[in-house]
Amino acid sequence: MLRQSTMRLTGLSVQLKLLVRAKAFSTSSTRYANRAVVYTETGNPADVLRVQSYDPLPSPPSDSVNIRFYFSPINPSDINLVQGVYPAKPAQLQLSAEQQAFVGGNEGVAEVVDVGNAVQGLRKGDRVVVGKPQFGTWSSSRVVPAQDLIKLPSSGLSDVNAATIIVNPPTAYNMLHSFVELQEGDWVLQNGANSAVGQAVIQIAARKGIKTINFVRNRPDLDNLISALAELGATHVFTYDALGDKSLVKHVKQWTSDRPIRLMLNCVGGRDTTAMTRLLGENAHLVSYGAMSKQPLSLPTSQFIFKNLTAHGYWQNRWYNEHTRQEREELMRTITDLQLKEPEHEVLDLSNESSDEAATQRLRDIFVKMEQGFGKKVLLRL
Amino acid sequence: MLRQSTMRLTGLSVQLKLLVRAKAFSTSSTRYANRAVVYTETGNPADVLRVQSYDPLPSPPSDSVNIRFYFSPINPSDINLVQGVYPAKPAQLQLSAEQQAFVGGNEGVAEVVDVGNAVQGLRKGDRVVVGKPQFGTWSSSRVVPAQDLIKLPSSGLSDVNAATIIVNPPTAYNMLHSFVELQEGDWVLQNGANSAVGQAVIQIAARKGIKTINFVRNRPDLDNLISALAELGATHVFTYDALGDKSLVKHVKQWTSDRPIRLMLNCVGGRDTTAMTRLLGENAHLVSYGAMSKQPLSLPTSQFIFKNLTAHGYWQNRWYNEHTRQEREELMRTITDLQLKEPEHEVLDLSNESSDEAATQRLRDIFVKMEQGFGKKVLLRL
Repeated sequence: MLRQSTMRLTGLSVQLKLLVRAKAFSTSSTRYANRAVVYTETGNPADVLRVQSYDPLPSPPSDSVNIRFYFSPINPSDINLVQGVYPAKPAQLQLSAEQQAFVGGNEGVAEVVDVGNAVQGLRKGDRVVVGKPQFGTWSSSRVVPAQDLIKLPSSGLSDVNAATIIVNPPTAYNMLHSFVELQEGDWVLQNGANSAVGQAVIQIAARKGIKTINFVRNRPDLDNLISALAELGATHVFTYDALGDKSLVKHVKQWTSDRPIRLMLNCVGGRDTTAMTRLLGENAHLVSYGAMSKQPLSLPTSQFIFKNLTAHGYWQNRWYNEHTRQEREELMRTITDLQLKEPEHEVLDLSNESSDEAATQRLRDIFVKMEQGFGKKVLLRL
Repeated sequence: MLRQSTMRLTGLSVQLKLLVRAKAFSTSSTRYANRAVVYTETGNPADVLRVQSYDPLPSPPSDSVNIRFYFSPINPSDINLVQGVYPAKPAQLQLSAEQQAFVGGNEGVAEVVDVGNAVQGLRKGDRVVVGKPQFGTWSSSRVVPAQDLIKLPSSGLSDVNAATIIVNPPTAYNMLHSFVELQEGDWVLQNGANSAVGQAVIQIAARKGIKTINFVRNRPDLDNLISALAELGATHVFTYDALGDKSLVKHVKQWTSDRPIRLMLNCVGGRDTTAMTRLLGENAHLVSYGAMSKQPLSLPTSQFIFKNLTAHGYWQNRWYNEHTRQEREELMRTITDLQLKEPEHEVLDLSNESSDEAATQRLRDIFVKMEQGFGKKVLLRL
């Protein structure tokens, strides 16, 4: 029966694997079994991802700790990695002596449950995140070298904020601090302002008295979105349609008076992004961290030559690779102190599902919902 | 008769101006009259430019000197300014008490012929260039504030090199030095390699043991061009057609072995430029100083995010505006010491023409030739 229902979802080719899975399932199916969201080949997440139980962890090696994730978010870049269109290597997980698979997830909050003999600075019960990109956080228990962990402050940060702290808030924070030395009263321009990064940008900028001009897509509940972003601290919010209005440049000049806009953050690309750069002043920096339109970044060369525009990219993964554990922990403390609002979220708790197949079905349902535009951040609990 | 022949060229609307010109001509038509290439409205250079005599200069004010240009080149950006598509303000020239006009030209070599009482550091006979963009160098004698002049070394530099020293060689030199710290054995990628800047890039790079991969347009005499650029020091020369060859990336990787290409210089834009960026390594800098294709610079956002590409513009005008007279003179000494090859050139001597109209006709003929693809640098002598 189990076999049949899963075969309906993924086709005949998985038959052999299912035999192996049935075995694994039979040996570790308890309330506290380990589960992970895994895949063996890239593709559409609703087709290739499955929830699978795996063996309990042994005690950790002397330089490592065992951790137990309690929330692991599903981010757009996680989906791209499963689709095979994101330039990073997925993590692998040993499910049993005979079986290995890719495991998804780039961030999540965990608790230390067992500590290796030689580990210093980490204790059972500490709240941690993994400071190494593409760790495979869509899993319940894992063994991790202590040096790859970042201990979070024990208070001042909700578990939801902790689960979503490693990618988006640092992206926002570092983009606001690494390219232009912004002063109170300065202006920042951004698109995709409703993204997790965009919302963090609005909040971090507002904390420092930096004003933001934000662009979002038009939508039925636009007024609500504008109110929500204004509440976070957005100075102005527009849809991309406003870029067709020739008076916009004039208005922007009035608002900013003698402070030319010197920083623009882009996660969209394409024609609207090109149009937005007309609002920039001389010597501005355009920082791209995403390409939601799937269109290239296309700019008149005159912007570079005569307005001295500089175009950069930003990738938080690179930052982690280039910084020490101390620097990573310092950044986490800085983000914690900012007291960012929790993202709107929904928890998908798969830990109590009676079978991996039932859990897989619920997981796939949520990916279908996300494809259809479900907007809240989904936090997995495995 | 004079009036008629000129009217044939520019139409009836200029009739009134010609009456004024005829007067000016009659008062200053000697062998040593001042002449300038002027225009009163922007447009096609072969239509709107004219040669006009003007009054002899009075003695200079105490803080200024009178100079006499002997060579003033015609550069592409000069043409763009006359066309009205270059974002700079043309210089104005007082032709007589009653008449003023725009005067073209951004560089040229001159001799000091008269020195104001309070001027220090400049003497009659000194060879100078004007360190202020858009001075209007297509003129014979001019009064210039001493602080705007850059004295050139008296030896080690031909007059032709001196006439073309202020724009292109410093553009090449500064682009090679301001964005990436290049070491001997490093590689630089450039397009438009046959441009004046491109040729200077090849030579300056070769002097420092830096290797260049150069792209040029296909043309009937391609082999000659490749030989000429190789003689200047080019490591490799390709046409843009080579970008369609998938093995190029592999070849480039072999040549450069473990040194990823970190600097690309672009004066073209459009699709070929996008394709060239695939040859760049991580953390590269793309510096644009021209847009000969008239196409935008269009790049996949992934280049910025995942390969950490940075795109800049370079404009020598800005450099001059942001640097002191001492720094400008230091740069000229540096360029002089590089002993760059003289550009291929032709001198258009209009100083001995019997009339402004005859001089205008010769001038317009050369602009028509340049439109048709005449490739040598034209140096005006007025």
